[in-house]
Amino acid sequence: MGNEAAKKETILASASVRVTVWNEHTDQQRNGAVAEVYPHGLHTAIAEGLHDLLGGQATVATATLDQPDQGLPQALLDNTDVLLWWGHKAHHQVTDDTVARVQARVLAGMGLVVLHSGHLSKIFVRLMGTSCNLRWRKANDRELVWTVHPAHPIAQGVSHPIDIPQQEMYGEFFDIPRPDELVFVSSFTGGEVFRSGCCFTRGNGRIFYFSPGDELYPVYYHPEIRRVLANAVLWAHNPAPSLTITAVSPQSPNDWYLDRPSMSSS
Amino acid sequence: MGNEAAKKETILASASVRVTVWNEHTDQQRNGAVAEVYPHGLHTAIAEGLHDLLGGQATVATATLDQPDQGLPQALLDNTDVLLWWGHKAHHQVTDDTVARVQARVLAGMGLVVLHSGHLSKIFVRLMGTSCNLRWRKANDRELVWTVHPAHPIAQGVSHPIDIPQQEMYGEFFDIPRPDELVFVSSFTGGEVFRSGCCFTRGNGRIFYFSPGDELYPVYYHPEIRRVLANAVLWAHNPAPSLTITAVSPQSPNDWYLDRPSMSSS
Amino acid sequence: MGNEAAKKETILASASVRVTVWNEHTDQQRNGAVAEVYPHGLHTAIAEGLHDLLGGQATVATATLDQPDQGLPQALLDNTDVLLWWGHKAHHQVTDDTVARVQARVLAGMGLVVLHSGHLSKIFVRLMGTSCNLRWRKANDRELVWTVHPAHPIAQGVSHPIDIPQQEMYGEFFDIPRPDELVFVSSFTGGEVFRSGCCFTRGNGRIFYFSPGDELYPVYYHPEIRRVLANAVLWAHNPAPSLTITAVSPQSPNDWYLDRPSMSSS
Amino acid sequence: MGNEAAKKETILASASVRVTVWNEHTDQQRNGAVAEVYPHGLHTAIAEGLHDLLGGQATVATATLDQPDQGLPQALLDNTDVLLWWGHKAHHQVTDDTVARVQARVLAGMGLVVLHSGHLSKIFVRLMGTSCNLRWRKANDRELVWTVHPAHPIAQGVSHPIDIPQQEMYGEFFDIPRPDELVFVSSFTGGEVFRSGCCFTRGNGRIFYFSPGDELYPVYYHPEIRRVLANAVLWAHNPAPSLTITAVSPQSPNDWYLDRPSMSSS
Repeated sequence: MGNEAAKKETILASASVRVTVWNEHTDQQRNGAVAEVYPHGLHTAIAEGLHDLLGGQATVATATLDQPDQGLPQALLDNTDVLLWWGHKAHHQVTDDTVARVQARVLAGMGLVVLHSGHLSKIFVRLMGTSCNLRWRKANDRELVWTVHPAHPIAQGVSHPIDIPQQEMYGEFFDIPRPDELVFVSSFTGGEVFRSGCCFTRGNGRIFYFSPGDELYPVYYHPEIRRVLANAVLWAHNPAPSLTITAVSPQSPNDWYLDRPSMSSS
Repeated sequence: MGNEAAKKETILASASVRVTVWNEHTDQQRNGAVAEVYPHGLHTAIAEGLHDLLGGQATVATATLDQPDQGLPQALLDNTDVLLWWGHKAHHQVTDDTVARVQARVLAGMGLVVLHSGHLSKIFVRLMGTSCNLRWRKANDRELVWTVHPAHPIAQGVSHPIDIPQQEMYGEFFDIPRPDELVFVSSFTGGEVFRSGCCFTRGNGRIFYFSPGDELYPVYYHPEIRRVLANAVLWAHNPAPSLTITAVSPQSPNDWYLDRPSMSSS
Repeated sequence: MGNEAAKKETILASASVRVTVWNEHTDQQRNGAVAEVYPHGLHTAIAEGLHDLLGGQATVATATLDQPDQGLPQALLDNTDVLLWWGHKAHHQVTDDTVARVQARVLAGMGLVVLHSGHLSKIFVRLMGTSCNLRWRKANDRELVWTVHPAHPIAQGVSHPIDIPQQEMYGEFFDIPRPDELVFVSSFTGGEVFRSGCCFTRGNGRIFYFSPGDELYPVYYHPEIRRVLANAVLWAHNPAPSLTITAVSPQSPNDWYLDRPSMSSS
Repeated sequence: MGNEAAKKETILASASVRVTVWNEHTDQQRNGAVAEVYPHGLHTAIAEGLHDLLGGQATVATATLDQPDQGLPQALLDNTDVLLWWGHKAHHQVTDDTVARVQARVLAGMGLVVLHSGHLSKIFVRLMGTSCNLRWRKANDRELVWTVHPAHPIAQGVSHPIDIPQQEMYGEFFDIPRPDELVFVSSFTGGEVFRSGCCFTRGNGRIFYFSPGDELYPVYYHPEIRRVLANAVLWAHNPAPSLTITAVSPQSPNDWYLDRPSMSSS
């Protein structure tokens, strides 16, 4: 684990977070109603928000499904600290190989922020182990996002509640494992409630699911929503070395300490 | 949801729990060292323990990998309230179809008790979303199983600690999601610790992972271990109707209450 | 820990749960608006609901502040498996001695169901360690109680959502420790949300806080609310022997196992 | 909540953490066996470790029981971001007024790191709501501290396990509420286990309990233990404004949004 000097350095270092915003960005997004709201794609709007709020704390790139390796080659993942995921109609086009690559990086320590309809993305479903189904309705509900964990870093600096004038309704029961931390709960015009901001840890990776956001409403321009996403990026960033779990232990209980690290950095 | 009479009946009913103990039971188990400890297979020893302790509270059946549909046809799953799972060398022989069938039943409400080396079974890994790796050593460690949640039903009536004279060592880091409830923590001769009794909920299904138990040591004859498994069966039994999650909601926020159940029984 | 026969008996036994419903029942309740809704007191209405639904599964008694020892003498507590608590205006009249007596019984294993305005009762605040403050408004809101943990025993057999036509609004932020299990989340006409059904474990005692219920609205006659309370009583009942934590350990690490139980029954 | 410029500033600011290390530091500590290990008091050794590792990230002060207001006047608390607490023999000398003052600051947002025998301090017991009892033995056990949550900030940069050659044994059952996050689990020579690193949130305050450390062994000079404490200080520091919970809501459900913040900064 190195010497004292190295340890101090680790504590003091505050490297810039390398962020990638991934979006399926299919033809359906490039045209028509979606393009009117997000002319350069949802990923661009999300990335701009992060760039504005995080400034020198992060470098923000984007990636889309139509790029080589579905926009997520191993080299990019290896150099991404936090990945944001927006998908909806093209979940099935993401290959199992891509999903496996992303999952491995999350377990090793990459942060993952899953947005809105990404609740049914293959990567989220695989990391959760449940159906991730929920109730929904597209009917111009007003969404109010309430903080139920004000001490959480992701809740800093946002109103209580955040007021989103127009939104798709997402309601309970939301079939996810119990979140490690529940940060936000939303209500809708119809009276439904939803656990809209949920933290999970899987392996060495921190995962945040955030439901507000839609391709037909200008939610990703909302300053409070942008603030939540910026907070989420900083929270999901795990500066520790990648986690490698070693199953091999010393073969006598009396000498385990001779080669002990079961977790090592890559 | 029915009338008052039906509700009262549900509360009062105490139906017998239908238990299935599944074991890979390959040639490796039928012969040699394993057969000396468990001449009729691990599943038989486990089933006998449940039968002895639960009596009329449960009907206990067994199933093995070499049977049709890998021992787990849909009809059997549909009539199983709690499934116990023992596997080790043959995880890869369990087909993805079988895994999908079991997962769907767990999410709908079937209890699942995963034993020892089942931590790497496909079904457990899929339900957890992590690698489920751990440290291990086969060297006759003594294992002490300590209760850290004495109010939990699974901890009732067992010693503090349970003393297992000979065991394979399983040690941290154990790469699982944070358990919903942590019931037991073990120590080993080598000084390792392990979260040996962990509860999870996935969908409507209750899952218990319990690490003590091995094919070369007579752990499943240990009266305290048998007691834990009997407790686990009662805890994992969810008497509620199967959960079906309906995503369809009324299309106006003002009339959602006209057809409201998003969860219905099958 | 006794022999095998005793263990089997423990598993099979299904003793009747001894329930006490405590209510401050001050003059303010005996007269005027409250008495119009609850002519025999809130405790009587609550007790009747439990009796109707639980039948032979429980024996239900009531107690009030004006009785000797504030209605909660040691002998009564020692013979109570689950205590329900309704208080509002008279929290400060409950003495610290009474609170200490109840707290000790909860930690030893008595279940506690805290209702509505009991969130500011001395006993709940002491067990939580936080302010237990919340937002509120008395303005005839409609409350919808949504299940976010359908596998939980307390959620069995209730509609999704429970519809309460008239209620006092309780809203977030609710200053409680993170619940061990979150079962219900409510919304109100004003758009507020509230974690309305929360489970906690403290020592050997299971605690359920349930916010629906009010002295001016007929909430405790609502069949679904009654069902939740009956479920909560069964869940909070811990049949294990009372927990006594022994701090004394063997004074050599090599003979700890000679007198090991650190938890014993009283 | 201020404008966008203010928000960006909040995210970027990385103010120095104001730390206070409190120690009862009674005559028993100033003389004899304890003074041989910690000639300037435990607080001084702990403060030096923090200063060495955190450098400009923190300003570290100390306080002791014999000072005015028991070393914890309101003005000091108001200017403390994270308080470390070491106490053992003098828990009862800390007045209820002092405890109330500290509790209020924790709920408002001050971090609290409770060390070793501080598990029975009045402040910890009050914040937990349980007895906080545990098993113990003073007999030169070796303690191994294993990480069970490698993604947690407090676990960064420490060995797996941390090896403490001589320690007082603390064993389960430890009567605390379920931790929000369990970071470390220890084993001892006698085979006992202990949840030795536990995170809690109470109100706006982050609390870390860490059991390694003793007045007779040089544990607070151990470089890995010092690293854990430095990590804990950074984790427990909540940079958000103090939390004030407002119970007053608009009196009509239709105009709640006119004066909505229920949480404001002091």
